[in-house]
Amino acid sequence: MVVAPLQLIPRQLCCGEPLLVVFIFMNQEEKLHNIRHSLAHLLASAVLEMFPKAQLGVGPVIENGFYYDFLLPRPLTPEDLSKLEKRMRALAQSKLAFERNEMSTADAKEFFKAQNQPFKIQLIEDIEKFGTTKADEILNSDKKQDARNKEGLSGVDKVTLYKTGKFIDLCRGGHVENTSQIKTDAFKLDKVSGAYWRGDQKNPQMQRVYGIAFADKEELAAYVKLQEELVKRDHRVVGPRLGLFLFNDMSPGIPFYQPKGMIVRNALETFVRESSYGPGYSEVKLPQLFDSELWKTSGHWEHYKDDMFVLVVEEKQFALKPMNCPGHMLLYKQGLYSYRDLPLRMAEMSTLFRNELTGVLSGLTRVRGFAQDDCHIFLAPEQIADEVADLLKRITKIYKIFGMEIEDVYLSTRPEKSLGIQEEWQSAEAALAAALKKAKWKYEINPGDGAFYGPKIDMSIKDVLGRKWQLATVQLDFQMPKRFGLEYVAKDGSKKTPVVIHRALIGSFERFMGILIEHYAGAFPLWLSPVQIAILPISKKQNAYAKKIEKELRIANSGLRIELDDRDESIGKKIREAAMQKIPYQIILGEKEAKSGRAGSRFAGKIAVRTREGKDLGVVPLKKFAEKIQLEIEKKK
Amino acid sequence: MVVAPLQLIPRQLCCGEPLLVVFIFMNQEEKLHNIRHSLAHLLASAVLEMFPKAQLGVGPVIENGFYYDFLLPRPLTPEDLSKLEKRMRALAQSKLAFERNEMSTADAKEFFKAQNQPFKIQLIEDIEKFGTTKADEILNSDKKQDARNKEGLSGVDKVTLYKTGKFIDLCRGGHVENTSQIKTDAFKLDKVSGAYWRGDQKNPQMQRVYGIAFADKEELAAYVKLQEELVKRDHRVVGPRLGLFLFNDMSPGIPFYQPKGMIVRNALETFVRESSYGPGYSEVKLPQLFDSELWKTSGHWEHYKDDMFVLVVEEKQFALKPMNCPGHMLLYKQGLYSYRDLPLRMAEMSTLFRNELTGVLSGLTRVRGFAQDDCHIFLAPEQIADEVADLLKRITKIYKIFGMEIEDVYLSTRPEKSLGIQEEWQSAEAALAAALKKAKWKYEINPGDGAFYGPKIDMSIKDVLGRKWQLATVQLDFQMPKRFGLEYVAKDGSKKTPVVIHRALIGSFERFMGILIEHYAGAFPLWLSPVQIAILPISKKQNAYAKKIEKELRIANSGLRIELDDRDESIGKKIREAAMQKIPYQIILGEKEAKSGRAGSRFAGKIAVRTREGKDLGVVPLKKFAEKIQLEIEKKK
Repeated sequence: MVVAPLQLIPRQLCCGEPLLVVFIFMNQEEKLHNIRHSLAHLLASAVLEMFPKAQLGVGPVIENGFYYDFLLPRPLTPEDLSKLEKRMRALAQSKLAFERNEMSTADAKEFFKAQNQPFKIQLIEDIEKFGTTKADEILNSDKKQDARNKEGLSGVDKVTLYKTGKFIDLCRGGHVENTSQIKTDAFKLDKVSGAYWRGDQKNPQMQRVYGIAFADKEELAAYVKLQEELVKRDHRVVGPRLGLFLFNDMSPGIPFYQPKGMIVRNALETFVRESSYGPGYSEVKLPQLFDSELWKTSGHWEHYKDDMFVLVVEEKQFALKPMNCPGHMLLYKQGLYSYRDLPLRMAEMSTLFRNELTGVLSGLTRVRGFAQDDCHIFLAPEQIADEVADLLKRITKIYKIFGMEIEDVYLSTRPEKSLGIQEEWQSAEAALAAALKKAKWKYEINPGDGAFYGPKIDMSIKDVLGRKWQLATVQLDFQMPKRFGLEYVAKDGSKKTPVVIHRALIGSFERFMGILIEHYAGAFPLWLSPVQIAILPISKKQNAYAKKIEKELRIANSGLRIELDDRDESIGKKIREAAMQKIPYQIILGEKEAKSGRAGSRFAGKIAVRTREGKDLGVVPLKKFAEKIQLEIEKKK
Repeated sequence: MVVAPLQLIPRQLCCGEPLLVVFIFMNQEEKLHNIRHSLAHLLASAVLEMFPKAQLGVGPVIENGFYYDFLLPRPLTPEDLSKLEKRMRALAQSKLAFERNEMSTADAKEFFKAQNQPFKIQLIEDIEKFGTTKADEILNSDKKQDARNKEGLSGVDKVTLYKTGKFIDLCRGGHVENTSQIKTDAFKLDKVSGAYWRGDQKNPQMQRVYGIAFADKEELAAYVKLQEELVKRDHRVVGPRLGLFLFNDMSPGIPFYQPKGMIVRNALETFVRESSYGPGYSEVKLPQLFDSELWKTSGHWEHYKDDMFVLVVEEKQFALKPMNCPGHMLLYKQGLYSYRDLPLRMAEMSTLFRNELTGVLSGLTRVRGFAQDDCHIFLAPEQIADEVADLLKRITKIYKIFGMEIEDVYLSTRPEKSLGIQEEWQSAEAALAAALKKAKWKYEINPGDGAFYGPKIDMSIKDVLGRKWQLATVQLDFQMPKRFGLEYVAKDGSKKTPVVIHRALIGSFERFMGILIEHYAGAFPLWLSPVQIAILPISKKQNAYAKKIEKELRIANSGLRIELDDRDESIGKKIREAAMQKIPYQIILGEKEAKSGRAGSRFAGKIAVRTREGKDLGVVPLKKFAEKIQLEIEKKK
C-alpha cells in the first residue's frame, strides 16, 4: 500500500469542495477526521443556541481536533466554554444524523441570506468562481493545493449543505453517520483566540474556538498529558533557565549561545566531526556573503530571493548565504578532479541566514541564523548505492545514541515535472532502493514526490514524547552540477558531470538543540552536559578536600566540566540548586569523606555520590567514580 | 628615552614645510633618511640630464628608499634605469654639497616658471595657502598630520631651495652634507610604476621611479634577499598552491578555506581554546547581524558605519557585526553579576565583517571577513593588574610556541582628549605597569597615546624574517560598560560599573594564518600540518604493507593525518610531490621494510623515514616512530 507521509495529507477544510471528496478507504485516521468534523458542526449549533445572532465563519478539522470561527456580540468566557462543551455532549447523545442536501449556489445564497450569515455567502461566491474557497487556499496552502489551484479548477454551481438536528451548514461532507459514534468523554473545548476573517487584518476579527478530540478518553488523556509535558519541557523556557541560550530584540530569531549552551554546541560539533563526518570527509569554510551572480547561477535569486538577506556592496547586490550548496559548487569548479578523487565529500558548519518574518520566528525551531552538519558529496552515478547505504548506517547509529527512532521512511521518485533523462532517474532510484536494502531499512515508495532535480529519501525521527521530526536529509541532485558546469575525468578519459548528494544527518544545530532540550527535559546525558559534576562540601571545613577532589578529577580527565560550590550555604540548598541545573552527578563531601582522603596519596579518598534524579550512589572511592564517568562519557550513555 | 613606535613616525615628504623641520637628535634612522632624501635629488638630476624637458613632481623618502615622479616624453625602459643608476653613482662620487637657499614664494614661482616646472609651481601655491603641500596631505595622511592641518597651520611666504651640482629643487631639507656620505654600492633603482599627479585620476599620469637605499651594501643585500624570500613565501601564492585557501570574485576579500586550510584553522581554534582561553574562560556565540540600535548605543553607528555592511530588514536598518564587543555588553547586561562572578571572561570566535573597499583588499592580511581569538573580560578595577599579568604570560607562552619574539612594548597612557576621571586613569595605568613588571616585560611609556576610553599595552611580534606585526591586543575600556549601563554588585552591596579588557592574543585567525604561512614558508610544524605523514610504497608490491602501517599508525593515534600514496608512480616522483606539499614525514616502504613487518604482530614492522627537507632518518621500528611523533605533536615542536 502506498501512503503519503502525514505532513503531505492536505488538511481538510469544512466547506469548500462539495463534490470532489473521494473516499478510497476508511481507516482510523479518517474516522477520527469525521468525528472532529462533526464536532465542529455541534459546536456551531451550540453557539447559535447561546447567541442566536452569531455569524459563522469556517470550521475545519486541524491536527488533534477542530476549530470554528464566530462573530459574537461579546468575548467568550471560560464559563461559556464549559456550557458549550456540555451542550455539545447533550447534542451528541441525542443521536443526530447528518443529512446531506445538494442545492444550487443561488438557492444556497438565498438560504444563508435568510439566516443572516454573510460569511457563508462569501464562501459560496468563492466556490462559484474557483470551485474552492479562499479560506481553503489560506489554510491549505501546501504545494499540491497550489498546483491544483493553478491547474485551473473551474467554478461550480452546486454546493452541499448538511443538517444535524436544527443546524444546517455549508459543507463538503465527511462526518460520522450519527453523533452516537462520538465518544462524549473523548473531546473537550480547549481555548479561544482571535482570528481575522480570511486571515486579513482589514476584515472583522472573529473568535476562534478550538476543540480537541480523539477516538477515546485514553487517547485524549494521553494527549493532554503530552501537552502538559511539552509545556514543562518547552525549550524556549528551559533553555534560558538553564543558561543555554537566550534571544534579544537586537537580533530577532538568532540565538545568543550563553556559555553553557556553547558547551553543548561545541560538544555537538565535535560529535558531528566524529559521527556525521569522519574519515573521508573534508571540512571547508566558505564566505557567508556572496555576489548575487552566484545566486543567479544556482537559481536561488529567481526562486528564493525573498527569503535571503540582500545588501548592496560597491553598487552590486550581495546576499548572505541561506545554504551552502552554491558555494560548494563554486569551490569544486576551481579544482580538477578525476574519478579517483570521488566521492568528494565537502562538509561545512558555517552559519546560514534566512530572512524569516519576525512574526513566524519561534525559539530554536524557526530562526534567522542556523548552521547544519551539512555536506555535499560529489560522486559518479555508480557510487550512489554504496554512499547512501553508508549515510543510512550513520543515521541509524547517530539516532541510537540519542535514544530516538527512525520511522516513516519513504523513497520519493521522479515527479511529472522534472529535469533529466529517464535512465538517469531510474538508475538513481534503483541505487537508493539498493542502499535502503543494504542498510536494512523498511520503507515505502512515494511515487512522484521527488524534487524536480532528483529522487530522495525521507524519514522521520521520533523523540521520547512520540513526536516526529524531519531531521536527516539525503537528496540526490542531477541539476545543480550541470548548472555550474562541473566535471570530473572518468576512467576512460572522458569528461563527465558528477551527481551531488545533499546530506545533513542531524540537520540544523539550533533546531536539534531545541529538540534535544525537550527530548531530555534539559537533563542532557553526561557527555553533553554543560556541567558534569557538582562538588558540594557540606561545610567550610571540607572546602580544602573538595578542592583536592576537583584537582584529582581534572588530572584524571582534563576535559571534565566540574563546578565546585564552596559557598557558605546549606548542603540542602546546594543539592537542590545542582539538581535544578540538571548536573548529572553531585559529589557530597562531609567529615567522613574528608577524613578518608587526608592521609592517603592521590586518588586515595572516598566521595559520596548522588544523581540529579536524587538517587544515592553511596560512598565510593574517587578512583572508581573517575573510571565510571570516563566510560560513561566515552560510550555517550 | 621616549620613542614613538615606528608606525607612528610620520613619513617625510621632499618639499613642503621648508621652515619647520626640527632635529631633536641625529640617529641612524635619520642618517638613512637623509641619504635617501639626497638620492631622490640625484635621481631627479640624472633624469633631467637624460630628458631635459622632464617635468618634476614630488620625490619623498619612503620605507626602505625613495621615489620621484616625472612627466616624461616616453616610458622608461630597464636600460634607462641602469643608465640613471650609473649616473647617480657618478654624481655621488663627485662629492657634491647641498646648498640651502631661502627665497620668497614669488621669486621661487618665477624661478620654476623659467625652468618649465609647472608642478613645482603648484606645490609652492599650496605652501602659500596652507603652509604645506596637498601632496604632503595625501602621502602623510596619518591622524597626527590631519590634526596638525586642522589646527590651522597658516600659509607661509618663504620656501627653501636646495642646490646639488647643477640641479635645484624646492625642498624643506634633510640631506647629507655632501654626497660623499652616500655609499654608492648601497642603493639601487628598483622599479617604475604609473602615478597620477596628486593621486587624482583626472590629473596627468606620471612615471614614478622607485629606489631602495641603505647605510651599506650588506644592508642592501639583506633587504634584497628578504624581498626575494618574501616573494617565495608570499602567502597569497603559497596558500593556494598548498591547497590551504583561495579567493573568488563571488566574495571578494573573504577566504574560501579549502580542506587543508580548514585543518590548520581547526588546529588553531583548538589551540586558542587551550592557550588563549582555557579554564576560567567562557565561550559564547552571538548573532552576526544586529539592529542598528545596538550600534547606536555602542557608538559604532556614528563613528564606524562606513566600514560596516548595512542592510534593511523589515524596514529597520541592521548591520553585520564588525566586532564582538557591543554584543558582549548586551549579553552581560542580561545577567545579574556580583563581585564573586568577576573576572567574567566572554570569549567568541565568530566571523566578523568589515566593508573594506575591494581596492585595498590583500590576501589574508586585509579582508572583509575574519574571526579573532577575541575575549572581553569584565572585572573590578582592583583585578586589572593580576588579569593583565596573566594575559602577558599567555602571550609570552603562545609566541614562544611559534618561535616569534615580542618587541617594542609600550604602555600608552591618558591622551589629552579622553573621558573618565583622573584617579581612574592613574590607577589603571599603575595596574598595567604592575602587570608588565609582574610578567617581567621590558617596556617604554608612550605618554598620551592611549585610546580616549582607556590606557593600553602595545607590542610587536617579530617573525623569522624580522618583520614586526601588531597581533596581540590588551586594551582597557572604562567607557563602553558605562554606555551600556553595566553593573555588578560589589562586596559592600553597592552597584558598581565593571571595567572591560578587550583582548586578542593571536588577533585575526586569517591574518595570523597568512603570517604563519610566510613565517614557516608553508612548512608548518607537525601539530599544524594538514598532512603529517606521507606513506610512500616503492612499488605495488608494498601496497599491502603500506596499508598495514597506515592502520597501525591510526591505532596509535586516531587523529593522525596520513596520506597513503599508492599510485603507480616512481618513488622519486612520490617523494618530490610529498616534499612540495611540505608533508613533515615521508615513510618509504621497500621490499626490506615489507619483509620486516610480515611475520610480526602489531607494530613489529620497520619503516624508512625521511623529512620534507630531505633528511634521511634511516630505518626505524614503527613503534619508535609513532612515539616520536606523538611527543612532537604534544610538545608542538
